[in-house]
Amino acid sequence: MNIIEIMDLLGTIAFAVSGALAAFSKRLDAFGIVIIAFVTSAGGGTLRDILIGVKPVSWMTNMNLVYTILICVVITFIFRTWLLKLRKTLFLFDAIGIGLYTIVGVEMGIQTGLHPFICITLGCITACFGGVIRDILVNEIPVIFRKNVYATACIFGGGVYFLLLKVGMLEQFVFPISAIAVIAMRVLAVVFKWQLPSPYGKAGGAQGMQTRF
Amino acid sequence: MNIIEIMDLLGTIAFAVSGALAAFSKRLDAFGIVIIAFVTSAGGGTLRDILIGVKPVSWMTNMNLVYTILICVVITFIFRTWLLKLRKTLFLFDAIGIGLYTIVGVEMGIQTGLHPFICITLGCITACFGGVIRDILVNEIPVIFRKNVYATACIFGGGVYFLLLKVGMLEQFVFPISAIAVIAMRVLAVVFKWQLPSPYGKAGGAQGMQTRF
Amino acid sequence: MNIIEIMDLLGTIAFAVSGALAAFSKRLDAFGIVIIAFVTSAGGGTLRDILIGVKPVSWMTNMNLVYTILICVVITFIFRTWLLKLRKTLFLFDAIGIGLYTIVGVEMGIQTGLHPFICITLGCITACFGGVIRDILVNEIPVIFRKNVYATACIFGGGVYFLLLKVGMLEQFVFPISAIAVIAMRVLAVVFKWQLPSPYGKAGGAQGMQTRF
Repeated sequence: MNIIEIMDLLGTIAFAVSGALAAFSKRLDAFGIVIIAFVTSAGGGTLRDILIGVKPVSWMTNMNLVYTILICVVITFIFRTWLLKLRKTLFLFDAIGIGLYTIVGVEMGIQTGLHPFICITLGCITACFGGVIRDILVNEIPVIFRKNVYATACIFGGGVYFLLLKVGMLEQFVFPISAIAVIAMRVLAVVFKWQLPSPYGKAGGAQGMQTRF
Repeated sequence: MNIIEIMDLLGTIAFAVSGALAAFSKRLDAFGIVIIAFVTSAGGGTLRDILIGVKPVSWMTNMNLVYTILICVVITFIFRTWLLKLRKTLFLFDAIGIGLYTIVGVEMGIQTGLHPFICITLGCITACFGGVIRDILVNEIPVIFRKNVYATACIFGGGVYFLLLKVGMLEQFVFPISAIAVIAMRVLAVVFKWQLPSPYGKAGGAQGMQTRF
Repeated sequence: MNIIEIMDLLGTIAFAVSGALAAFSKRLDAFGIVIIAFVTSAGGGTLRDILIGVKPVSWMTNMNLVYTILICVVITFIFRTWLLKLRKTLFLFDAIGIGLYTIVGVEMGIQTGLHPFICITLGCITACFGGVIRDILVNEIPVIFRKNVYATACIFGGGVYFLLLKVGMLEQFVFPISAIAVIAMRVLAVVFKWQLPSPYGKAGGAQGMQTRF
């Protein structure tokens, strides 16, 4: 098991818990919970694999991943009352998930021989797309449009990854540091309510959009 | 023409009729009807092919399938008043469709050398995903969240398939019997209003979710 | 750079501008604008590549395309007040986009050795699917259901392509003429408010559907 696989597994756990908690708070039935946890967790990697042409897509040949998600759903279910009380848990698991998945996506892009910009995009897709499908399925505004420092944190972390690589840092350090960069930016953005500069002046931006939908 | 191809064709017919009837009841125009019938019918298989890496996806090299869907749309259109009166027709065609497609998906998973759990998942995707895209396109709650003994019937049929295979039944019997298992469970679930046990106590479950969306 | 690549680039520009304008009028933030422009522009081609099995999908190995979209977003942003005043600009760029993309899709289908019907379908998908994802993301009725002479124009242009090819016209003329056929039909349809014949009698059709959604 190399570092990518370990990070991928940790990301899977974080997103499976985050997905299951989201499904609980929507009061979906047992089957709906498993689907939402699975989609949140494996959706981004699936799109990444389809786009770069890994076949069959990773989770199909990786039963550990499938078992991990199922076990996470059961554990999350048992501790749901406790987890849902700590409202911030959902958010924190999600932040850890995007941090780990971003860098997994970037590394797979590099292995496929893609341009750094495309690698970062692939990192973003791996990290954010599971949440986007989840939101489309439960009929909410996709997460990337709601919280503007979400995908931005992934792009930032992807940039940090290539920067550290360029200054000659060893790869086993580059991975965790750039994953932490994503998580830190996401957490700081939520704590301090960071917003991207609005292109429409004061009144506009994300809030304006939310009411329009 | 082997048994998979025959079953696939029958499933295509069942879903094309079911999709066209759904589009009629939404009063879509001629073009919308063809798209919805096509998506309902070929959507699940398309995702299955993309996930396991069949290229190009089956319907692109199988004109019979395309002609079948178009002919079904025309025939369904001619008899629409009669078919829509029998409200249960739509449901029955859909049940037959998921029964046949589930087992087609399972068999393709086996041919790709995947784990039985993944094969059953692939059967579910083949059977349910066409309906999910149809529902997203016409802006309804995806079918797998509305009717909880829907995907469950597919999983049950997939289980029956591997069980019968394990006890040594001949493959030409395993296929129709497990397809009938899916159809029977789906029909019985609707007739007797089966529900998955709610994880939220009495008040919750599918109904609670429907009003939330 | 051959004719397909040139046409693809022009289509990319047209759709990137059209997507960015749509995002401005929805008041999305800077990040949302780039995503919508990118999805509108590259979404159709991405699905086409996935369906026929090009791997990795084209835009991943074509940085020119990525830069083009980003430059278009910036230029569109600078001239947005001026462009949004001319309401018809958005529509015209969209019409040019579907014209060019339809024929790019048809040609890629031919190169993959697919049946003419499938090639035309592929042209439609390339042209329309970017707009469909855009509409799903911003929570609108997908464009192919709203405007019934939209995909129809693509099908018409695809038919013109094969007709001209059959009568022996040189390929370098077939491409632009059939692209213009799509654009002309789309523009004429909007100007003269063409509708597909409704299968439900006078009251029905697209308008009936719009109010139902």
